[in-house]
Amino acid sequence: MAHRAELIAVGTEILLGNIANTDAQILSEKLAELGIDVLYHTVVGDNPKRLREALELARTRVDVIITTGGLGPTYDDLTKQTICDTFGRKNVLRPELEQWLRELFAARKRPMAENNLQQAYLPEGCTIFHNHNGTAPGCGFCEGGVHVLMLPGPPRECALMFETGAEPYLRALSHDVIRSHTLRIYGKGESDMEILLRDKIEKMTNPTVAPYAKSDECMLRVTAKAASAEEAEALLKPAVDEVLSVVGEWVYGVDVDNLESVCVAALKERGATLAAAESCTGGLIAKRVTDVPGASAVFLGGVVSYANGVKARVLNVPPALLDEYGAVSEPVASAMAEGARALTGADYALSVTGVAGPDSDERGNPVGLTYIGLASPDGTVCKKCNFGKRTRDHIRMQAANTAFDMLRRTLQ
Amino acid sequence: MAHRAELIAVGTEILLGNIANTDAQILSEKLAELGIDVLYHTVVGDNPKRLREALELARTRVDVIITTGGLGPTYDDLTKQTICDTFGRKNVLRPELEQWLRELFAARKRPMAENNLQQAYLPEGCTIFHNHNGTAPGCGFCEGGVHVLMLPGPPRECALMFETGAEPYLRALSHDVIRSHTLRIYGKGESDMEILLRDKIEKMTNPTVAPYAKSDECMLRVTAKAASAEEAEALLKPAVDEVLSVVGEWVYGVDVDNLESVCVAALKERGATLAAAESCTGGLIAKRVTDVPGASAVFLGGVVSYANGVKARVLNVPPALLDEYGAVSEPVASAMAEGARALTGADYALSVTGVAGPDSDERGNPVGLTYIGLASPDGTVCKKCNFGKRTRDHIRMQAANTAFDMLRRTLQ
Repeated sequence: MAHRAELIAVGTEILLGNIANTDAQILSEKLAELGIDVLYHTVVGDNPKRLREALELARTRVDVIITTGGLGPTYDDLTKQTICDTFGRKNVLRPELEQWLRELFAARKRPMAENNLQQAYLPEGCTIFHNHNGTAPGCGFCEGGVHVLMLPGPPRECALMFETGAEPYLRALSHDVIRSHTLRIYGKGESDMEILLRDKIEKMTNPTVAPYAKSDECMLRVTAKAASAEEAEALLKPAVDEVLSVVGEWVYGVDVDNLESVCVAALKERGATLAAAESCTGGLIAKRVTDVPGASAVFLGGVVSYANGVKARVLNVPPALLDEYGAVSEPVASAMAEGARALTGADYALSVTGVAGPDSDERGNPVGLTYIGLASPDGTVCKKCNFGKRTRDHIRMQAANTAFDMLRRTLQ
Repeated sequence: MAHRAELIAVGTEILLGNIANTDAQILSEKLAELGIDVLYHTVVGDNPKRLREALELARTRVDVIITTGGLGPTYDDLTKQTICDTFGRKNVLRPELEQWLRELFAARKRPMAENNLQQAYLPEGCTIFHNHNGTAPGCGFCEGGVHVLMLPGPPRECALMFETGAEPYLRALSHDVIRSHTLRIYGKGESDMEILLRDKIEKMTNPTVAPYAKSDECMLRVTAKAASAEEAEALLKPAVDEVLSVVGEWVYGVDVDNLESVCVAALKERGATLAAAESCTGGLIAKRVTDVPGASAVFLGGVVSYANGVKARVLNVPPALLDEYGAVSEPVASAMAEGARALTGADYALSVTGVAGPDSDERGNPVGLTYIGLASPDGTVCKKCNFGKRTRDHIRMQAANTAFDMLRRTLQ
């Protein structure tokens, strides 16, 4: 039987927005791999009444409850006692944990405050999850067919304890394995994908295909459930191929990070190098390329030519072009790309010049108008884009994405 | 009366762990500033039955419900219809939104898929929240004393719509006016601030002072509640001055966006210009400066000199320096800054050269070692930093922040 889970995070700091509920993301990803469906995330503050209400509700709608947070030694760490009250278990001292705690503090040459001893108490009869990154142990037990697992709040403690304690506990319960592949798409929207694939999406049950919007991109996730990873992959292969046969033209990668990492990989594969000449993107292309570890093998450098003087002096854009066509023009975009290629000796050079806003430029070019150049051993191409009156950030992101997409199409 | 809120995020991708529920953090922080208590975060998948159950529960325990996600054009975007069903409102076409959508697609020269028209429908009689970052409008309405607000899922869209639409809607609900000022701090941590200000923080009730950690920075928020904005401001002024008298040294601005915007403003004030020469930051400094609207008035441009050849050829860094000291050294950082200043004719030039990792460089310099140069009319200074073995992103961010802090201290 497939298990259904609810994650309950306990912590006023999450409700105040001081921290994000990253534990929920970490655990959800791992639970999906175990074939456990996460149906709800819930966050309550350090408040026994609301936590108890959340637990009472959860036990009626799922059979796996995982709490994060509230296991520490201070007065507001109330998860354990509240769970004991809710599920009718005694909170008992575990001598092995007391000994472990006392040795831990001794090893750190720190006196153990007595409230730390609270952390040696756990619900009677539970399976202990040891904490290798902190002082708060977690645990799991089953009451009336509902499995209740407690994990600490700090993400590195939570993630490690899941792997070493909760995952083995849960693997024993689950039979299915879930695997998925993600197709990354640029140049077509989520709704376009859905129209192109609607018949397939509606027909498919296992694997399933689901489109997701992701800022300026979209993704298609193909997910299969099976008794083993091998069987799941065997189901996925033909489904992914079928989807690619329809929308492959816009898919820039499967299970890849982003456009820039695809470009860096493609350049490495060819032993080719890249440079950039950026006006309105102001360094965003260079920044994103160098976000990719190992980019130094292919990226030589770039010029942020915000002022026309820099375009002329550093990139050797003929002042006559700047005067005649203006900085935001196809001839200047092409000259910038060629200038960067010549200056750095790179095989490929991307250039961007456009109006990121908030105002149109002195020649009256509208916000969003952008020219993107690509100089390569085969010559120079330039693309005119109109991204419309978006925010400055959005226009710059789209310009960079379009440039990367031009490059990866040339390389792939 | 103080309002109690529940945030309900709709999205299977959150339950699968593909993305974190960042909207909840963004909104919780903003709601706290408005004096609205967030009691619950809830996440459900793209499932009308569970969403409806969550809404039915929420209306019994809070008086402000804010949903995020599920407003898009695809079949799994079901938030609007489910909310209409739950609260007994018709989902009606808003002609002004249909016109806006058609114009939007026309401006982008893209055909509008018919399912996009779904986004022009909203619950009858609601207040429209316009979307300046996307195609899905949001809205707010009140039913039986419960305010229901719908915001889009993508954080960029959600955050901006909250500011422009939801915040004014919510401010109108409260009689008290809440005003706050935020002191932005670089170079001291949240806990340092707490120690320096503990006595004051504990004494204050209205206004209150609260420290927040924010990635590589921290903030102090001074918040006052009063019957009018004027009264609130009158309470805030002396409190802010008192805090500044203690920690002013590390405060780079009050109610400012970030270090780069402070630098741009200070340069504008002096009529001075800036350039950048970046190695390990790979364009991050130029990108962040040009994120600031109007940066073109002060930022001439920059060079991303990732390869040593580019450092020598473009920035005129003497090859002898590169050979003798290596690229990651004080002499090279200084030469890069001076080279960028000479090349662009800028008054000030920042440079960064360091080891962002994941591996130490060929000279065995450790990950995190970074030299930051600042060339100015008064000469060149260079700062040696060791950011430790952090992630690549983290080191690059710290290097850029340190560079901006050096510049703003020189200018202020």
